[in-house]
Amino acid sequence: MTALRYDVLGIGNAIVDVIAKAEDDFLVKQGMNKGGMALIDEQRAQAIYDAMGPATESSGGSAANTIVGCASFGARTAFVGKVKDDELGGAFAHDIRAANVAFATAPASEGPSTARCYILVTPDGERTMNTYLGAAQDLHPNDIDADAVASSSIVYLEGYLWDPPKAKEAFLKAADIAHKAGRKVALTLSDSFCVGRYRDEFLKLIRDKTVDILFANESELLSLYETSDFDTAAKALQMESRLSVVTRSEKGCAVVQGDKIELVPAAKIDRLVDATGAGDLFAAGFLVGHARGKDNVTAAKLGAIAAAEVIQHVGARPAVSLKDLAGQAGLPI
Amino acid sequence: MTALRYDVLGIGNAIVDVIAKAEDDFLVKQGMNKGGMALIDEQRAQAIYDAMGPATESSGGSAANTIVGCASFGARTAFVGKVKDDELGGAFAHDIRAANVAFATAPASEGPSTARCYILVTPDGERTMNTYLGAAQDLHPNDIDADAVASSSIVYLEGYLWDPPKAKEAFLKAADIAHKAGRKVALTLSDSFCVGRYRDEFLKLIRDKTVDILFANESELLSLYETSDFDTAAKALQMESRLSVVTRSEKGCAVVQGDKIELVPAAKIDRLVDATGAGDLFAAGFLVGHARGKDNVTAAKLGAIAAAEVIQHVGARPAVSLKDLAGQAGLPI
Repeated sequence: MTALRYDVLGIGNAIVDVIAKAEDDFLVKQGMNKGGMALIDEQRAQAIYDAMGPATESSGGSAANTIVGCASFGARTAFVGKVKDDELGGAFAHDIRAANVAFATAPASEGPSTARCYILVTPDGERTMNTYLGAAQDLHPNDIDADAVASSSIVYLEGYLWDPPKAKEAFLKAADIAHKAGRKVALTLSDSFCVGRYRDEFLKLIRDKTVDILFANESELLSLYETSDFDTAAKALQMESRLSVVTRSEKGCAVVQGDKIELVPAAKIDRLVDATGAGDLFAAGFLVGHARGKDNVTAAKLGAIAAAEVIQHVGARPAVSLKDLAGQAGLPI
Repeated sequence: MTALRYDVLGIGNAIVDVIAKAEDDFLVKQGMNKGGMALIDEQRAQAIYDAMGPATESSGGSAANTIVGCASFGARTAFVGKVKDDELGGAFAHDIRAANVAFATAPASEGPSTARCYILVTPDGERTMNTYLGAAQDLHPNDIDADAVASSSIVYLEGYLWDPPKAKEAFLKAADIAHKAGRKVALTLSDSFCVGRYRDEFLKLIRDKTVDILFANESELLSLYETSDFDTAAKALQMESRLSVVTRSEKGCAVVQGDKIELVPAAKIDRLVDATGAGDLFAAGFLVGHARGKDNVTAAKLGAIAAAEVIQHVGARPAVSLKDLAGQAGLPI
């Protein structure tokens, strides 16, 4: 067995977030689906950018945020994702490496620019996302470093990878390498619309045991099983016999494993500032807990701590050490 | 007389801020002068960026921050500054226009990239700046739109403009146009090291009446008169017979006009998060008050409101409407 080098290796769309405040009116005028993620082309990206207010740029990407969260807990981490060798691509690479994440994916030297997600944060702290995939489209199976994958305790993949054409091949290649090396594969369903686009494929991944650990929020789970009733969806999930974690915002989460459903409350917050990254950071805490052999409830508590931190400030990556927060909560990593 | 189109037109270095948290140790190791602004070349910029933590990018530049602050008070504003037509240059232009500032300076199509300021924010909220001037070096007298300057109540200039070789010519051209049109010229001394570099030239600008309104903080004023005693410096300043405002952080400010010195306290804050932009935003409030015919104490109070807002969050531009804050404080603009 390959020696363990990483607790968690993530594969995802490498994206720079362009974040601005907006009123609800703006979303309506722009025809945006509040709280969701829409894929946009370059022309629409320009139109949204022209219309939106002053913005800040910071590195994002769902799985990338999760991996940075894992690193903030002190875990050994790596990330695979495609940027272009442009200014924003350089910023993405800098930020993830500066967070102590190994990042060795070669940037594209031609083709579309580094992916951007235009995020509108409304006064209630909700975030509405518009993603121009750009260079992230070009993630290719050749970008998967077999040795790095085989030496990672968990390989974590985002459902959004189903959007770029070649990325799903990279995803499947990585999952295969991981399983052959006796490692685990985790998947987040990413977004209810993403589930709508790829429902059958995601169910197949779960049922053919490509996925060992599944992350979903409530609306993604409902979309997966095409129901509006949470209990119906939860029962369907139990039948899959996978370790699953369903996050329910301020209601906390449910860890589902076979017959057992364990409920873990959300961590207390003072004020919801920006919900961006909540699910990503929850996954970070759970993955680190799981990789380090903690029980599911403890892993979920670590997830709750990380999610609570990230929603109390603007931006999708932790502003303080999650390792310190976990220690202060009596859950040392 | 040309009709009034703008309350304040600013000319300054067009800079994108790259902001990261850092411990005091980092500043020591990097040989940085805490709280100051150092000019750096491209190689040093790369070395600092490689060493610093995960960062966010947001539009900055001293005079640009001031002008955005003026716009947030509801004033009519314009900005002149040079970016390149690269990704960060596009972000600078977007952000300042999205803040309702007229920005028509043509971007450079070749030469160095858009200017960046690497800002390290230490746990005490102090910010230490390292500026790579890049394309801002190439601001040229031809970039001054004579009609825009002549139709602005106040032309505001930053001392930092003395660093790029041609920018000071642009500065002097604008001051000349403004005075011929019966407008006022304001200058901020920018930074005590900047004063150290150009002391004689700044004194000449004051004494030959190129400057009508002078902004300085305590250390800049001490540097201007090469003294360590505030009262000595304040007396020297009174002799200049210019309207001057000296900011003294949490001690508030002193408005000096002839024999009269008026002290205005700082506005109360809950917590100092990031001092970046404090002086810039103070100037914004004072300039708007002055342009709209308020007395000096009222103008200084507006400055204090704006400075207090900007230091309670990360970033150098207001996060909420300064017009609303002024209204709530009983000082409607």
